[in-house]
Amino acid sequence: MSTTTWGLSMQYQAIGKILSEFPEKFGVPKQPGLAPSLRAILRLEGPWGHETLARGLEDCSHLWVLFDFHLSGPFRGGTVRPPILGGEKRMGVFATRSPHRPNSIGLSLVKREKIEFKDGAINIHVSGHDFVNETPILDIKPYVASYDRPSGEVSHWSDKILTKALAVVWSPSSELQLRQLASEHLRDPIEQVLALDPRPRQANPESVFGLSFCDLNITFSSQGEGLCVQAVEKAGSLHRVK
Amino acid sequence: MSTTTWGLSMQYQAIGKILSEFPEKFGVPKQPGLAPSLRAILRLEGPWGHETLARGLEDCSHLWVLFDFHLSGPFRGGTVRPPILGGEKRMGVFATRSPHRPNSIGLSLVKREKIEFKDGAINIHVSGHDFVNETPILDIKPYVASYDRPSGEVSHWSDKILTKALAVVWSPSSELQLRQLASEHLRDPIEQVLALDPRPRQANPESVFGLSFCDLNITFSSQGEGLCVQAVEKAGSLHRVK
Repeated sequence: MSTTTWGLSMQYQAIGKILSEFPEKFGVPKQPGLAPSLRAILRLEGPWGHETLARGLEDCSHLWVLFDFHLSGPFRGGTVRPPILGGEKRMGVFATRSPHRPNSIGLSLVKREKIEFKDGAINIHVSGHDFVNETPILDIKPYVASYDRPSGEVSHWSDKILTKALAVVWSPSSELQLRQLASEHLRDPIEQVLALDPRPRQANPESVFGLSFCDLNITFSSQGEGLCVQAVEKAGSLHRVK
Repeated sequence: MSTTTWGLSMQYQAIGKILSEFPEKFGVPKQPGLAPSLRAILRLEGPWGHETLARGLEDCSHLWVLFDFHLSGPFRGGTVRPPILGGEKRMGVFATRSPHRPNSIGLSLVKREKIEFKDGAINIHVSGHDFVNETPILDIKPYVASYDRPSGEVSHWSDKILTKALAVVWSPSSELQLRQLASEHLRDPIEQVLALDPRPRQANPESVFGLSFCDLNITFSSQGEGLCVQAVEKAGSLHRVK
């Protein structure tokens, strides 16, 4: 009676895309909620951009976003090396939230901010996200506590691993640049992103890193146990390594 | 710079299927967690059935299942009528968890029970589900409290709507049949399912209903404010309306 289902092809269509501060993957938080000052727009377009589809969203405080990990590449093997375990130990992919999975579907919980209707699109502003710009959206669902909050004891193997936020300081010249570029409002999100330590594993302590953030290029380096912002420049105004 | 994304085709493959007590949609809880005694098996097959892919799952108490609403049919319009609102009021689809959506992808939180490896498949037993049998699985992700529990105030328009569990009684003959069929262990899940009131809206109070559950056909009817089980028979042993 029972038939084989695996391998059955499932076709869906993007219902829109995400506009985010991150033009590239570098610096994007590994999970939502880690940098609450980050702002993104879920832009629903075409037939899904009509105002009626958002009716009731104003009474939903948090949203699940189902999206495609469009930059994650093909998945091989069956295990992944979670960064939180130092990148050495392998775990079965279904025990992790890795973007490298059999189906490249992501699931992120975000806080809903304002909702706008513009040019035939629904723009849902959200905060605390972990999205790279231009991510295709598959679905948006409201968070409903009675369905989405487990009852009883809850555990995951990562629960006991504590990650420490890095201290972030600004060089005097980078402080000045931030003000001159009228980008003071980006101070909090930038600090939150850097505090999560976007540096690659085993990076040279002398290295200088570049974070693309909105229309800015943020140069930073290691300093003691933390990070120091060295420069803030308009993207495109300097030689960018891509 | 910004390109249109909506309509972009996304292709995924089922990684396995769900084995559940419900051969049909009738009676399936509207959401997970409502009937904690329900048991299903997430069967991961083919290349995804290898033991290594489950490494670490034993340390995950709850799982998100992403699946295809394979019985939900094509989606038209943009609003749905949530049963919890009496089926009259229309809400934008993105403010609801309706199975009728632009992309027929479902998201359910379940409790992990035992894990078995058998015939090249991973069988993840789960409880408190809301799945119909043969549902294609797209992904399994662990519940991680620090990512999946919103901080701050949480609200959804349905929070204040209280639904009352129905009282369920068994007729003496149905009690006897349940024992004779050695199906006493199905009493709790059946009662939980019926307590959620699977009757169609505006059903005739005289109507008799049939619930397919495992290999049983459960006949029940309204009785006062609750429901009464009239008969428990082996499916196939009687004229079933399909």
